[in-house]
Amino acid sequence: MNIQYLSNPGKYRVLAVMLTALCIAEPIAAKTVKVSMTAKENTVVIDNKGTEYPAWTYDGKIPGPVVRVTEGDTVDFTLTNPDTNKESHSMDFHAAVVDVLKEFSEVKPGESKQFSFVAKHPGVFMYHCGAATMAQHIARGMYGIIIVDPKEGYSKNYPKPDREYVLIQSQYFPNAKDKDAMIENRGWAGSLINGKIFHYDPVHDEDASLTLQSKPGERVRIFFVNANINNPVAFHPIAGIWDRVYINGNPKNVLEGVQTYNVSVATADTFDLVSPADHPTNNAIVDHTMSAAMRGAITVLMNMPDADPELGKGNNILIR
Amino acid sequence: MNIQYLSNPGKYRVLAVMLTALCIAEPIAAKTVKVSMTAKENTVVIDNKGTEYPAWTYDGKIPGPVVRVTEGDTVDFTLTNPDTNKESHSMDFHAAVVDVLKEFSEVKPGESKQFSFVAKHPGVFMYHCGAATMAQHIARGMYGIIIVDPKEGYSKNYPKPDREYVLIQSQYFPNAKDKDAMIENRGWAGSLINGKIFHYDPVHDEDASLTLQSKPGERVRIFFVNANINNPVAFHPIAGIWDRVYINGNPKNVLEGVQTYNVSVATADTFDLVSPADHPTNNAIVDHTMSAAMRGAITVLMNMPDADPELGKGNNILIR
Amino acid sequence: MNIQYLSNPGKYRVLAVMLTALCIAEPIAAKTVKVSMTAKENTVVIDNKGTEYPAWTYDGKIPGPVVRVTEGDTVDFTLTNPDTNKESHSMDFHAAVVDVLKEFSEVKPGESKQFSFVAKHPGVFMYHCGAATMAQHIARGMYGIIIVDPKEGYSKNYPKPDREYVLIQSQYFPNAKDKDAMIENRGWAGSLINGKIFHYDPVHDEDASLTLQSKPGERVRIFFVNANINNPVAFHPIAGIWDRVYINGNPKNVLEGVQTYNVSVATADTFDLVSPADHPTNNAIVDHTMSAAMRGAITVLMNMPDADPELGKGNNILIR
Repeated sequence: MNIQYLSNPGKYRVLAVMLTALCIAEPIAAKTVKVSMTAKENTVVIDNKGTEYPAWTYDGKIPGPVVRVTEGDTVDFTLTNPDTNKESHSMDFHAAVVDVLKEFSEVKPGESKQFSFVAKHPGVFMYHCGAATMAQHIARGMYGIIIVDPKEGYSKNYPKPDREYVLIQSQYFPNAKDKDAMIENRGWAGSLINGKIFHYDPVHDEDASLTLQSKPGERVRIFFVNANINNPVAFHPIAGIWDRVYINGNPKNVLEGVQTYNVSVATADTFDLVSPADHPTNNAIVDHTMSAAMRGAITVLMNMPDADPELGKGNNILIR
Repeated sequence: MNIQYLSNPGKYRVLAVMLTALCIAEPIAAKTVKVSMTAKENTVVIDNKGTEYPAWTYDGKIPGPVVRVTEGDTVDFTLTNPDTNKESHSMDFHAAVVDVLKEFSEVKPGESKQFSFVAKHPGVFMYHCGAATMAQHIARGMYGIIIVDPKEGYSKNYPKPDREYVLIQSQYFPNAKDKDAMIENRGWAGSLINGKIFHYDPVHDEDASLTLQSKPGERVRIFFVNANINNPVAFHPIAGIWDRVYINGNPKNVLEGVQTYNVSVATADTFDLVSPADHPTNNAIVDHTMSAAMRGAITVLMNMPDADPELGKGNNILIR
Repeated sequence: MNIQYLSNPGKYRVLAVMLTALCIAEPIAAKTVKVSMTAKENTVVIDNKGTEYPAWTYDGKIPGPVVRVTEGDTVDFTLTNPDTNKESHSMDFHAAVVDVLKEFSEVKPGESKQFSFVAKHPGVFMYHCGAATMAQHIARGMYGIIIVDPKEGYSKNYPKPDREYVLIQSQYFPNAKDKDAMIENRGWAGSLINGKIFHYDPVHDEDASLTLQSKPGERVRIFFVNANINNPVAFHPIAGIWDRVYINGNPKNVLEGVQTYNVSVATADTFDLVSPADHPTNNAIVDHTMSAAMRGAITVLMNMPDADPELGKGNNILIR
């Protein structure tokens, strides 16, 4: 229930609040979640045929680990920057309301940094390195997602999904050292989805083997982050329609029946897709911007009876 | 009534549903609508002075025919690709929930393909060719609109308009063969509105003769498709304000009093404009992005007592 | 109360309307506000170290003066174009519903022009020069903001802020004469915030001395205009979350808890930020698009007990 639409004083409001009380599950007690990451300047593979790239990462991979908490939880975070690194790094959680000059400040090689914040707003949020030159730190791979589940849980407006997947898109600049080019948006050669070009698209890349999967009729929820440094994403499910779009992943900000949604640079939104229940189908989830789609930003979702029962469940929402 | 805002169990919900039942018109019985199109690789004229362009089209024109059905209808579609064509073509309706690998697959020259889908979501949707190289098939002209009128009909939130117009914008690449340039967004030289540069703008193009028209005070509804392959559109009515914006054309997704709305690549939205009732005025409907507006994306709407009574009525909503 | 969500005929509606009547403040009587501006082709300083730029301006500064009225007011506007100017100029208020060919027409050097309009829609709106070549007139500095406060005043959904600031971003083209480059988006070298690169960012520019300021826990409302001629803005408060986003500044178009919002070219939106109440913090308000942020579009907001009591109050909302 969007209580804000019924927020006038008087009898009417009391009625609304009473009804809300009846239908919302018991709130979960807030907890403290410890999260630790290590900045690593290491080579990663950025496509399905094994091309290596000199990345900067959280914990060695692009994207960094999925962080998931519940609204109201405290995140107790530590970033370690080993002395084997050459660069300073940092952590900017978009879910945190803190001090840009304190919590988000740079950590030099050989040092570490701890800070805490309460995740007050539900939704999906980008995190990334904000060390100078920020464009380069993001483009080279230092980003990820933090999911803040709403404390109210599921509702008619925010139904429980059958599967959940994380998709994070970013711009791939083969010349990892040319930060001026990154700033000016020159030289980007394609799109990474969860760190690889055509990561989950065996249709357009014969070396691809992974896909997203669901059973026919299931509600698939996609937590999408636009980690591009300069370009918006026109997020579209080919052969499907977003049943719901939750702007910033907040159940209060809901759109219905949307073909394509503009995901701004450096934001995250939540998308629900429901396939036909009576027969198998396939979707191709794309950035409909042709410069991105045709150079990597296509993900195949197979809706089939023998879908892998583990995929899109529990901790298995960001497929590597 | 947006019943989703009142969807709690209990007495309150019952009240809302009863009131909804009282005020919604009888639903129209769902029907099957047969739609046939032929892919044509033919020359078209892309400006008001007669410049020819080697297009790929549905039924010979840019954009393709307007398809209009009511929510719940079945669309029974056939695409014919004559053996006189050189390319494979296909059809991707953004209003369809189907299988990307089945219904939307390519049709070779000399073949045809039939498929059906139920238009379950109300609103306005792009359709386009998805054959490889998709960027080129869209840029050369294979796109159009499908309007799915809501089964509930009009309401206070979605009032009956006096006139309706379709406007579809696309990027014009004079070098029709250079698909790499299209993908990389190099070489686009202007914007087409319903297939022509400055199509309805006699102010900026002395060869233009057409305009949109309405009478003072009328509600003009514009079904707008962004068929650009790479660029969002900043849709703005100069000397007016969008009275309502319906995101994806869905009456549930309404914004009020908006000067400019960002229409993502490959999506469609519905825009209402109401001119002053007491005197004639003119609007210039633009993509406020200067690179598009100043190279073709301006449309004049004349609000005048002697407006053509046929324009913007019935089947006369996409003016050629 | 968003009365549109409760707009069915019958008993239910009557109830809603009655409750609305009880909780809305007395409407303010509509008034006529006289506004005069003079077009000036004069040199301005576009950064903190004193770089001069051959601007075109309203009243000599970039951006032009803040215009602020209440919904329902009549704006009686006069533009003077002195005969010392070389160019024709004009005024296009995005808050006006008028005639593009009449009120918004060009004024030649040595002439002036008066027109009136009623500000019917609440919110925040761009104004700008629409004289040919429009891209150049905007890029060289002829733009500003008109704020139309809602006649209903504040409410739970649109709370009274403690401070208000205007931020207007634009693209800086050092070669002020090359209008073709502007149209094609070539040669832009950075972002101006209220007319200067890194205007309020002493962290990234040692010559900067100004910042936005508030006390811890205050609600800071930002009226933001995207006066870029070609690029959308990904508006984000580093180390904060937009508590509310009002699309077009209209209290009816509200989003909650948003990390980054896409502000289309040539539009304006309103953003609320609330800092922690119990200790001082800092935000960096950015266009998260790296090509803009790293070349000027960063603004520091200091939330501290000794915040300047005058800043962000009354007429002191656009800091020069």
